[in-house]
Amino acid sequence: MKEFECIFCNQNYPADPMNQFCPQCQEPLLVDLGSGIRKIHPHRINPLERYIDFLPFSRVHPNLLLGEGNTPLLRLERLTEEFDLPPVFVKNEILNPTASFKDRGTVVAVQMAKSLGFKKIGTVTSGNMGISTAAYGAKSGMKTFVFINKNTSTEKLYSAGVHGPILVRIEGDYGKLGLESFRIGKDHGIYFMNATDPFRIEGYKVIGFEVFSQLNQERPTYIFVPVSSGGHLIGLIKAYRELKQQGLVQNIPTFVGVQAQGCSPIAQAFASGSLKFKRVHKTETVAQSITNPDPLGGNILLKLIREHDGIIMDATDEEILTAQRTLAEKEGIFCLPASATALAGLLKFRKKQKFDPQARIVLVITGSGVKNIKVLHKSRMNIHDVSLAELNETMASLME
Amino acid sequence: MKEFECIFCNQNYPADPMNQFCPQCQEPLLVDLGSGIRKIHPHRINPLERYIDFLPFSRVHPNLLLGEGNTPLLRLERLTEEFDLPPVFVKNEILNPTASFKDRGTVVAVQMAKSLGFKKIGTVTSGNMGISTAAYGAKSGMKTFVFINKNTSTEKLYSAGVHGPILVRIEGDYGKLGLESFRIGKDHGIYFMNATDPFRIEGYKVIGFEVFSQLNQERPTYIFVPVSSGGHLIGLIKAYRELKQQGLVQNIPTFVGVQAQGCSPIAQAFASGSLKFKRVHKTETVAQSITNPDPLGGNILLKLIREHDGIIMDATDEEILTAQRTLAEKEGIFCLPASATALAGLLKFRKKQKFDPQARIVLVITGSGVKNIKVLHKSRMNIHDVSLAELNETMASLME
Repeated sequence: MKEFECIFCNQNYPADPMNQFCPQCQEPLLVDLGSGIRKIHPHRINPLERYIDFLPFSRVHPNLLLGEGNTPLLRLERLTEEFDLPPVFVKNEILNPTASFKDRGTVVAVQMAKSLGFKKIGTVTSGNMGISTAAYGAKSGMKTFVFINKNTSTEKLYSAGVHGPILVRIEGDYGKLGLESFRIGKDHGIYFMNATDPFRIEGYKVIGFEVFSQLNQERPTYIFVPVSSGGHLIGLIKAYRELKQQGLVQNIPTFVGVQAQGCSPIAQAFASGSLKFKRVHKTETVAQSITNPDPLGGNILLKLIREHDGIIMDATDEEILTAQRTLAEKEGIFCLPASATALAGLLKFRKKQKFDPQARIVLVITGSGVKNIKVLHKSRMNIHDVSLAELNETMASLME
Repeated sequence: MKEFECIFCNQNYPADPMNQFCPQCQEPLLVDLGSGIRKIHPHRINPLERYIDFLPFSRVHPNLLLGEGNTPLLRLERLTEEFDLPPVFVKNEILNPTASFKDRGTVVAVQMAKSLGFKKIGTVTSGNMGISTAAYGAKSGMKTFVFINKNTSTEKLYSAGVHGPILVRIEGDYGKLGLESFRIGKDHGIYFMNATDPFRIEGYKVIGFEVFSQLNQERPTYIFVPVSSGGHLIGLIKAYRELKQQGLVQNIPTFVGVQAQGCSPIAQAFASGSLKFKRVHKTETVAQSITNPDPLGGNILLKLIREHDGIIMDATDEEILTAQRTLAEKEGIFCLPASATALAGLLKFRKKQKFDPQARIVLVITGSGVKNIKVLHKSRMNIHDVSLAELNETMASLME
């Protein structure tokens, strides 16, 4: 059995999903794989099997998979040219079973739930994580509880609900609800796999490993990632730390986490040099999926980012929406505003710093734009309303 | 250069996307690859390169790809057990760049557009095909025209529009519009890649080839597929005909095409023994994406299905919605009602015919349910509205 560790107190504890926080400092625990030689098995098709030496299990339960991972790494030719950038790639996590990167974490947490003998799982969510957990819960046949925010859109509520979980829609403080869920989990034997769940974070590592393999076993120079609770970026950093530990890379990439300016507690702490973030009380941003005023992984992320010379920055709503549009119009990728923060960050960053032409830049795109169509404005759409009889004339005018 | 052929008149013509119909019988033409030995290249990662010997080009333009294909083939364990079926698999085409199988066809047609020197492309659509064509059009930088039905939902309209095509929303007869688009295409040099485009159909073959490879180079016994224009199923049948021609399979699978009862011109013609379908004048079904009263590929499909002992059947809206729910609740797959017709067909079929326990059944799931959330009913969702203070009590009651 792997252990959990607190990277603040340097203490190890038994790996128990019912005890995910350090008893001394209350920060979230991470998985400690221990020492040993680990290899990538490049010819295995399933990503969990390909990187299994780096994961907290030694066997994959095949009936708990939904085809997650092996997402494309796409070179952005038109964008690179327009902005005079070194090669930029998108790791497109939209191509997962429930159209977001959350599936990467859920699949690993559900594998662990099965191995550890849990019969009930749950999550606290404002959207994508609930959809993902409900889908894997359905596949596994485990009773699934989704604690969902009162403000969640109908699209997201129904996309989770269709899988038949018990949906508990809760009015109240979202931060408190997270902690409350773990207490309820202990009372009722429900494994709550929330945003900074240690096993979920192990799943996010696989995104980093795939990028490494797709770049022919070379590390990218920069990785830009949207930041909410911090779990996703913690997983990516952990992946490259472990590759370095195994001698597979010499240096880890420069990680750039991007928050929406309207809710950016970690970016604010990074800018001010604080070791700990301060909870935000008023949030206002178009990047709904990363609106997290009290990010549980924030302090761990600040520590890791500083240790590895990374950056946490922010982007305005205008920058985010422009980036979303640019990706859709130039590269054919329609992502959530939250995902577009990665490109918004890159375009802001390049104004301050010149990139080495040898650099390779990766943007992780986390979720599909279809889940939040409201942010698009009709005025931006090139719509011509005509009858069949008028079509010829309209086409002639469009050709001019 | 490959040729186009009319499978009714046994005539060949130059492969010209501006002339997609037989001048004698007006039926759509298909690609004739000619004779020659073709091989699968199993170690190539990109599916277009893996099956390139079976495709109408000899080189893939890499900057026109969006990461399509290599979709999972998932075994449905819970469903198989519940309905006492031989192994059933889902080929999940939701995991494509724009979340539908249309990308398989669009990518091949866009490759051809580039090779043939077109600068403008277009399509006629009620939704998914427009989204797909707009995305690949954006990636390629070609001017893209999407002729879209007046009744298309805002979600689908905006999901296409976000990629910046010229959207022409047209009031009028949808069947006539299809033919009109080809005339307009000739006038203005626009390659209209509609539902039965010969190169698009070549792309659908790749789904069939991947299933063959994923089943370790054995053919499935049955393949169930939703049917609209007929293009998708024609492509799948063509794939296995070509595998047979190359001696890679001995027999082609039994293909079962499923239409929604509320718009089932091909199923009606099949049942009555007619060689040609009759246009439907009144349509009413929840399976919006396959509501096609005048399916251009209908007569070709009837010929191919009869030649290979396949079946075209229908399913009621109730059967379709039950199948949609079953896939979501038991297997974690949330698909469009149109896609669920494949399972609805299987569950109907099994009442009449017993399956050999050795049989292997594949359902092709064509598109994501997120694009049509309206068909879900709140009454079916297990929602509990509570305040944070009431949560404990609610949880206790849910555990009983």
